[in-house]
Amino acid sequence: MSDRPHTPVLDRVTVPADMKGLSDDELTQLAHELRQETISTVSETGGHLGAGLGVIEMTVALHAVFDTPKDRLIWDVSHQCYPHKILTGRRDRIRTLRMKDGLSGFTKRSESPYDPFGAAHSSTSISAALGMAVARDLGGAPEHGIGDCIAVIGDGSMSAGMAYEAMNNAGHLKKRLIVILNDNEMSIAPPVGAMSTYLSRLYAGAPFQEFKAAAKGAVSLLPPPFQEGARRAKEMLKGMTVGGTMFEELGFSYLGPIDGHDMEQLLAVLRTVKERATGPILIHSITKKGKGYGPAEAASDRGHATAKFDVVTGKQKKAKSNAPSYTKVFAESLIKQAETDNKVVAVTAAMPDGTGLNLFDQRYPSRCFDVGIAEQHAVTFAAGLAAGGMKPFCAIYSTFLQRGYDQVVHDVALQRLPVRFAIDRAGLVGADGATHAGSFDVAYLANLPGIVVMAAADEAELVHMVATATAHEEGPIAFRFPRGEGVGVDMPEQGEVLEIGKGRMIQEGARVAILSFGARLKEVQEAAESLQAKGITPTIADARFAKPLDREMILKLAADHEALITIEEGAVGGFGSHVSQLLADEGVFDHGLKFRSMVLPDTFIDQASPADMYAVAAMNAPDIVAKVLDVLGVADLDAKRA
Amino acid sequence: MSDRPHTPVLDRVTVPADMKGLSDDELTQLAHELRQETISTVSETGGHLGAGLGVIEMTVALHAVFDTPKDRLIWDVSHQCYPHKILTGRRDRIRTLRMKDGLSGFTKRSESPYDPFGAAHSSTSISAALGMAVARDLGGAPEHGIGDCIAVIGDGSMSAGMAYEAMNNAGHLKKRLIVILNDNEMSIAPPVGAMSTYLSRLYAGAPFQEFKAAAKGAVSLLPPPFQEGARRAKEMLKGMTVGGTMFEELGFSYLGPIDGHDMEQLLAVLRTVKERATGPILIHSITKKGKGYGPAEAASDRGHATAKFDVVTGKQKKAKSNAPSYTKVFAESLIKQAETDNKVVAVTAAMPDGTGLNLFDQRYPSRCFDVGIAEQHAVTFAAGLAAGGMKPFCAIYSTFLQRGYDQVVHDVALQRLPVRFAIDRAGLVGADGATHAGSFDVAYLANLPGIVVMAAADEAELVHMVATATAHEEGPIAFRFPRGEGVGVDMPEQGEVLEIGKGRMIQEGARVAILSFGARLKEVQEAAESLQAKGITPTIADARFAKPLDREMILKLAADHEALITIEEGAVGGFGSHVSQLLADEGVFDHGLKFRSMVLPDTFIDQASPADMYAVAAMNAPDIVAKVLDVLGVADLDAKRA
Repeated sequence: MSDRPHTPVLDRVTVPADMKGLSDDELTQLAHELRQETISTVSETGGHLGAGLGVIEMTVALHAVFDTPKDRLIWDVSHQCYPHKILTGRRDRIRTLRMKDGLSGFTKRSESPYDPFGAAHSSTSISAALGMAVARDLGGAPEHGIGDCIAVIGDGSMSAGMAYEAMNNAGHLKKRLIVILNDNEMSIAPPVGAMSTYLSRLYAGAPFQEFKAAAKGAVSLLPPPFQEGARRAKEMLKGMTVGGTMFEELGFSYLGPIDGHDMEQLLAVLRTVKERATGPILIHSITKKGKGYGPAEAASDRGHATAKFDVVTGKQKKAKSNAPSYTKVFAESLIKQAETDNKVVAVTAAMPDGTGLNLFDQRYPSRCFDVGIAEQHAVTFAAGLAAGGMKPFCAIYSTFLQRGYDQVVHDVALQRLPVRFAIDRAGLVGADGATHAGSFDVAYLANLPGIVVMAAADEAELVHMVATATAHEEGPIAFRFPRGEGVGVDMPEQGEVLEIGKGRMIQEGARVAILSFGARLKEVQEAAESLQAKGITPTIADARFAKPLDREMILKLAADHEALITIEEGAVGGFGSHVSQLLADEGVFDHGLKFRSMVLPDTFIDQASPADMYAVAAMNAPDIVAKVLDVLGVADLDAKRA
Repeated sequence: MSDRPHTPVLDRVTVPADMKGLSDDELTQLAHELRQETISTVSETGGHLGAGLGVIEMTVALHAVFDTPKDRLIWDVSHQCYPHKILTGRRDRIRTLRMKDGLSGFTKRSESPYDPFGAAHSSTSISAALGMAVARDLGGAPEHGIGDCIAVIGDGSMSAGMAYEAMNNAGHLKKRLIVILNDNEMSIAPPVGAMSTYLSRLYAGAPFQEFKAAAKGAVSLLPPPFQEGARRAKEMLKGMTVGGTMFEELGFSYLGPIDGHDMEQLLAVLRTVKERATGPILIHSITKKGKGYGPAEAASDRGHATAKFDVVTGKQKKAKSNAPSYTKVFAESLIKQAETDNKVVAVTAAMPDGTGLNLFDQRYPSRCFDVGIAEQHAVTFAAGLAAGGMKPFCAIYSTFLQRGYDQVVHDVALQRLPVRFAIDRAGLVGADGATHAGSFDVAYLANLPGIVVMAAADEAELVHMVATATAHEEGPIAFRFPRGEGVGVDMPEQGEVLEIGKGRMIQEGARVAILSFGARLKEVQEAAESLQAKGITPTIADARFAKPLDREMILKLAADHEALITIEEGAVGGFGSHVSQLLADEGVFDHGLKFRSMVLPDTFIDQASPADMYAVAAMNAPDIVAKVLDVLGVADLDAKRA
């Protein structure tokens, strides 16, 4: 395309080995071109922009100094990996990012040998890198062998306990391991927590210039005079340190803070570390999220995630929607509850915008708690709030609630504490792909004794479920809802407290009953319209509750129909399994029932639009039609004609 | 009983309020008597001894200075709570500890208002206390109101990321909150990790005497001259500090280290903190696990958990078993694999003895990794090892693997990395009760794409499954086995690599087929013997795999029998649900099958012997007999007669 950036140096680099002949000046130019290429790419594809722009120089420097894929470069979260992908043999496909059959928006082992460990959830990189470093020293010999193991992790990811666990273990094992702390004071939201304050203090009083001089002094010692030995190297690295006692207390050498956008400094430091590091070392690099692209630098989220946009103006090209997003409906419903109930409080784990709690926070700042990327703590902190007489709503995406699962079991369910779990991004989520799919929450929650599990069929139902959760004091209660816009139903003035364990009939029909749990209801209704044309009028019910089940309604549906089909936006083990358990226990199967449970298939589904992902899952309206016809033994003439 | 200790002061204390009139000397005497009472109790009941003995003085001092239950005292893990229970109205039932219908071995909200937050898993206390402190400041008003919130946490628990997440958040929120770090250098096993080394350094150079003087100086300032204001108080507390910058960097005031067995010092420090603390404060108390009881102090585990014992000699009264424990069979099988395969490595999270990896470590110390209480890291570290070409066995109890669930999904399953999960303590576990039950692992694992999930029916099967897991390189594989001794079957010389997804027939019968997954097989066989007497010979099969299912075998069992019953030591959503999904998909229910799935009931089952717990769950041989008779419509004449 004619408006693509001019990239003469980048055009010579297909894989990192092509960078070995470049001078330091050329590497600086390469970084410049890589930044333009990244901006140009994301303007076409949408996706994570700010994080990638913040590590452009680091990406170039790491690939210039180290020898990937033998050296293992692990990007934490890895939404900052687009420049890395451009440099590692994937430039020709980079404009398929996050699309169906295109490149993943994250690192992915199956995509490239330059991605030694996939990610998308945060704070896993140090654990993975340490595992590989240990494997290296034990003689593990996968493809390419194993050289240095390097984790690049953001300051936001450092709030997660998992990163601390890994550092604690790394400091103990003392293996050579390189951790680069990419400190941009910004994960998805501004960072919170004492660690973040601590990091700010580390570089507040230490101008880069001082460090720069030290780094240059260090590099002047290269090539290494081996006779000096490890002790000398360690002292030298220590001399480069301006702060960082906390990391040193955890057994790491601390190096920095350095200017992560200064190529000269980066190359000097990385070359020194490569030559001299013995045990675990942490390089503290200060960067700017969105660096080098005005509209991103100016945005409050520093261009964290963006739609397609115009490169010159930065204006995003978003389709207008008629229905409000589930996230917004949740937030507004919660604010409404909080207006009349001063015990309502909200907890999120570094997702204030994604969960809508930013709106709640604007209205009730003293009742809103962003604990950072710390789902384990978020859940038990909410349990403490509940034990203290409050009504906590713990708003966490389905996929991230997996991080707090033991806390849900041990601290909440076992003690029957009334924590309200607002589970956003339930089911398949689109461009973020398999790593973000909310597939398992119904299964992992609904078998916990004493919990109530709901799913919203549409945005009006969500309003009722927020009201129901507020009123429910007898134990934990969860409600799940999908990513994206609602279906456009009329919205109630006021949320209504639903009767626990009661579903609702949507449509009376005959022969087949479809019992929907959650937001597939719209597809079920579309399917019913198609079936009508074939002379079949299915009964449709919205279960509302996976736990407790509406026993009476389910048994009646089973008794009155030849076939019963359940459908849910989740994996096996959840709603359909609970229905099946009930039917078996009640002896319904003894004399025959055409029962089918439509669940997510037994595969991780790659990114595409949610509709396309559900097509892969065979859970859209045409699939429901086919299922009904199949179970009733009606030939699908349309399908055969097609 | 005549050999009970003489406890004149303790006899005057039923609840903490009774301690208010006691002099400091009497409190010291009370601590002495409480120690004797605790030893006497555990000699009769068995249970956790060392941890409680280590906090005798702290327990007395906390209850003397603070006003529980209004002040919220939260014991981390809470296996050290026996002395606390004795002082809080439960002395009359203390000798029912860990028994059926007796007191729980842990704190439990439903047991007493003095237990504001239950525990059993580690590292939850700071999160819970912070939640309560926030609730207090927001006007949460549960029973008794909320005063000070105090978390008592061991140094071992500090290796868990969750504790770090909570401190990071507490340092940010700046609420008044008291954390007592009970540092005995010993969780279940000697602690590992850089944090532990750091804590040792903190008190290595600081004799208690110095601190003692400071503490006395501090207390002499009481009652507080209010005009001095908060700044003065803060300075004073700071003056009492000998080290602890890491905690200060996280926003805590650090106070200590203090001698946790010196009542005078404890009372002085706690009184000062009660008067003066503003934000979060950490008191670093050095104690000795097993303190004051020779046999415990002398034991390598400091009397961590013990059977009933003779108080004078410390000799434990253990019943001899004829069969080896599953744990030992696992360890020996793994060592055998490691002998011929140098890629086999093992990872545990602070459970070397409990998982049998202490034996592996003795043999292969360089291939065995205890990462501390850090399940999240353990799983992803294992994933890194697998990505580095090793064959990691990640040995974690079922209940604790919940802590690493997201890592199993995101780092292992999604990437199809061949991590081997050895899941000990699957199913109901006995005296540790509901908090330690391994109820959910089959459900939360078997719906993950690409994973293999096995359960051992007996100890010989476990040997085969270790061999199978070693050989399986295509993706993750898990095998679960129960707590305790095997069933006494003949042991194979050599583990055999099982065919993935193939079950085995145990007995051919008619009318009803019982398909067992895991260690209920013995009960199924016993049930079959009883049924034989009634003229019913059930077919029995051992599924071996919950995933992939033995489709062929299951469909044949369904086709050849009037009834099919599955049984597993787990909750709904697991094996039985997967079988049911298969049967539904295949249309087996269309024309009728008496299908039943025996799973753990929808309730948390309190401690008792495993057999008694399974009786509550209705999953023992008589229950299986009853289920068969019921499903076949055969009247149970015996039952009616009884």
